[in-house]
Amino acid sequence: MNGAQALIRTLVDAGVNVCFGNPGTSEMHFVAALDSVPEMRGILGLYEGVVTGAADGYARMADKPAATLLHLGPGLANGLANLHNARRARTGIVNVVGDHATYHKQYDAPLESDIEALSGTVGWSRTSTSTESLAADAAEAVAIAQSGQVATLILPADVSWTEGGVPSASLAQPVRATVSENVVQAVVDVLRSGESTVILLGNVGTRERALRAASRISQATGVKLFAETFPTRMERGAGVPAVERLGYLAEQVTYQLTDVRNIVLAGAKSPVSFFAYPGKASDLVPDGCKVHALAEPGDDIAAALEAIADIVAADVEPLLQEARRPSLPTGDLTPQNWVDVIGALLPENAIIVDESNTSGLLLPMATAGAPKHDVLTLTGGSIGYGMPAATGAAVACPDRPVINLQADGSAMYTASALWTQAREELNVTTVVLSNRSYAILKLELQRVGAESTGPKALDLLDLSRPDLDFVALAKAMGVPGTRAGTAEELAEQFREAQSKPGPHVIEAMVPTLF
Amino acid sequence: MNGAQALIRTLVDAGVNVCFGNPGTSEMHFVAALDSVPEMRGILGLYEGVVTGAADGYARMADKPAATLLHLGPGLANGLANLHNARRARTGIVNVVGDHATYHKQYDAPLESDIEALSGTVGWSRTSTSTESLAADAAEAVAIAQSGQVATLILPADVSWTEGGVPSASLAQPVRATVSENVVQAVVDVLRSGESTVILLGNVGTRERALRAASRISQATGVKLFAETFPTRMERGAGVPAVERLGYLAEQVTYQLTDVRNIVLAGAKSPVSFFAYPGKASDLVPDGCKVHALAEPGDDIAAALEAIADIVAADVEPLLQEARRPSLPTGDLTPQNWVDVIGALLPENAIIVDESNTSGLLLPMATAGAPKHDVLTLTGGSIGYGMPAATGAAVACPDRPVINLQADGSAMYTASALWTQAREELNVTTVVLSNRSYAILKLELQRVGAESTGPKALDLLDLSRPDLDFVALAKAMGVPGTRAGTAEELAEQFREAQSKPGPHVIEAMVPTLF
Repeated sequence: MNGAQALIRTLVDAGVNVCFGNPGTSEMHFVAALDSVPEMRGILGLYEGVVTGAADGYARMADKPAATLLHLGPGLANGLANLHNARRARTGIVNVVGDHATYHKQYDAPLESDIEALSGTVGWSRTSTSTESLAADAAEAVAIAQSGQVATLILPADVSWTEGGVPSASLAQPVRATVSENVVQAVVDVLRSGESTVILLGNVGTRERALRAASRISQATGVKLFAETFPTRMERGAGVPAVERLGYLAEQVTYQLTDVRNIVLAGAKSPVSFFAYPGKASDLVPDGCKVHALAEPGDDIAAALEAIADIVAADVEPLLQEARRPSLPTGDLTPQNWVDVIGALLPENAIIVDESNTSGLLLPMATAGAPKHDVLTLTGGSIGYGMPAATGAAVACPDRPVINLQADGSAMYTASALWTQAREELNVTTVVLSNRSYAILKLELQRVGAESTGPKALDLLDLSRPDLDFVALAKAMGVPGTRAGTAEELAEQFREAQSKPGPHVIEAMVPTLF
Repeated sequence: MNGAQALIRTLVDAGVNVCFGNPGTSEMHFVAALDSVPEMRGILGLYEGVVTGAADGYARMADKPAATLLHLGPGLANGLANLHNARRARTGIVNVVGDHATYHKQYDAPLESDIEALSGTVGWSRTSTSTESLAADAAEAVAIAQSGQVATLILPADVSWTEGGVPSASLAQPVRATVSENVVQAVVDVLRSGESTVILLGNVGTRERALRAASRISQATGVKLFAETFPTRMERGAGVPAVERLGYLAEQVTYQLTDVRNIVLAGAKSPVSFFAYPGKASDLVPDGCKVHALAEPGDDIAAALEAIADIVAADVEPLLQEARRPSLPTGDLTPQNWVDVIGALLPENAIIVDESNTSGLLLPMATAGAPKHDVLTLTGGSIGYGMPAATGAAVACPDRPVINLQADGSAMYTASALWTQAREELNVTTVVLSNRSYAILKLELQRVGAESTGPKALDLLDLSRPDLDFVALAKAMGVPGTRAGTAEELAEQFREAQSKPGPHVIEAMVPTLF
């Protein structure tokens, strides 16, 4: 058994049985070893940003890590942006990054680069230096990933190909830390103070179990609940407590937190502005408001909320969202009516991967009472996340419909994810919101107070000239595509896509809000 | 004048008047400032890998740096792979990477990451900490780039937007170091030793002036000439001395260097294997062969070769390649006949951007006697270089036809470069060599001695199921595309593409060699 075979066996034994990859020569023994471990599924992505984004989407839905296979420093670099999103989401990923053979590195061959400098920017990293230690390194990487971190194992080619590999037993799976009774009691005191209080939910705090506990607390004490702006995975819809997300714009957050005197953090970070703006605050905690840490993202957030609920809301039931859908709208597509189509037709048990950006501003209201569903969001702000994450989510949950609501500019970062969706016959419906601009930047150009908005500036925010054709793009990747100009067309095409297996693309011609 | 305006003015005054960019919110003041400096041309890329690859292609042809505009750490990360190629090519680029405002970084907002760790992997890097010092930092970055390095200027948003910017005077342009007479004489002694000797040419050693001097030396002394495996820019064709490149495969190099006793490095590195292979040598210098350094890549390589030629070949003329083209072939496309079509029809004064990989193995022979042309190659081995580099080369040389010979797998990394070609109306003809596989990896899988080649392994090297459709992909980007199955069709479509301005894509259905 060579190193690669022992590595893959170790991953599989630890529950990591999907590997998204885009390999090169230095990873050929890993590739060859895939056939010797039947439990490992290899999935090809045509670009590393697809590979890492798929691993992120997979982990968010499977609640366990996938592996990636990447080709030296440049391959890792191509995947870093979506690893950044994973880091912010605190989803675990085990990257296997092939490297030159240990003895070959001294020659500074063309692909030589500082892999550890790159991998260190997104989490834990180790270069495995011997075939004997490789499997143990892999077991440690898996445990790190299970704790919600990106773990990168750098695998020199000779460590991979040398005989003498021995699979390693799995390490104990990390468990979430229990929040102490003292901390729980301190938050109970805050809740009973009578002051205006908000519980800010993040990490698994936006999953159903935690939401139910939080809702009981809210019902009993009157505290407001908010989810962090970009949740890793939010469970919502009919039968689940409805919780509003903090806004993306600082102005929205300031409004949402008006007169709040206490913010209780349950797996979320204290609210800050996404970007800095001249003359505006970065820290969005209102003046005089205290911030109380109930649970860190890695803590047992749901149990902490339940402990509080058992004290302050012993006999109180959560307030569950009623089933309610918008009517099917008509007419040319608008920022309002397209979300109503989605709200009206969202299938049961759907997974929404939301990278709709400005086009999706009205989406949460329209889908609030739709059948229970999950929403995955752009946690790290690094665009090009939607199509890959939808791919990974569909691999994790083959029996659930995945709906990728996708801004056009962001789609162009990692569009080859569609090809992987076609190859793996994944049930992903991608609705591309085609407003032919980086609409958010047109807004931001004003918000940052840039005085000049001449033609050269506007040209850099504009995606027309030439117009992108997402129906042709889908065809290029082997995915059927259609174009919708009206709400009726979108509804018909969305229904049609849901009725047939495999991926579909709908280019929805939704004009900008601004 | 704010910081951004002073920065752009400084760049323009130093001769950097093209900025390839993909901006975000933190770069909005830079974007707004573009209209205040008319000499700066802004060119939008839909992905950062396109932006950086275009800057590389531009610099190779313009012999001066372009700027890039990138959005924080993730934007830089997306551009790193082609910056890696630029680093290996020693082409200068001035990256401007927007960052959060200095006072905002402490809040660890979602897009916060370690930009300096990333930029440090590809070259010089500095975070500009005040509006007053920004322009001076920019002038230094330009000088670094002019010396053939990737220079990254990290630009916090507040440094950009604050008033008080003052443009900085340009620094002296770096000059290539003159090789000492002692070194020249030592090489002359080697050349006169009568031992089998090779001069290995790299950097500007593969440009016409150096090639003419090297050819004179070769004619006078009988030494063999080789170019490095992946030249930054090679001038060749009718009227230019013909020099063979060292092969990609170690076996080829071993053959090319058989019985060689001396290797003289003229801007090239000592030959090493691109990858390590079990049981095979990494260092490709033959046993007992001495390596002599005539000129480093940054030295005045052409002058050093001319100094030698003036000693050993005072009255000797270079041997120039005769004009000679293959006949136009017929029949279904093959790895041989498609290159003959290119050789037969290559227009005058063309720029070939070669990322044809295995499909292009026979290309050098077929184009050897075509009209004089430049060839840009994949210097760093990081695929996804061709389409962006062709874009930049066409911006640098609007009056020259650019021919991008492009492997299909690599094309999928950065295909949105086609959109920029359409927007900027660039004269780029892309011939996609569509063999529907990572053919080189099928070869490498055997070469690394991987024993198993089961179906799961082969699946990761295969680009069919579904077939990619590059005609549709071109259409998606606003570029006219056609498909050629025979040599006659390829010839007709290639002629047609040359006869019309703007970009064209031809998908050439060339089967794999292996």
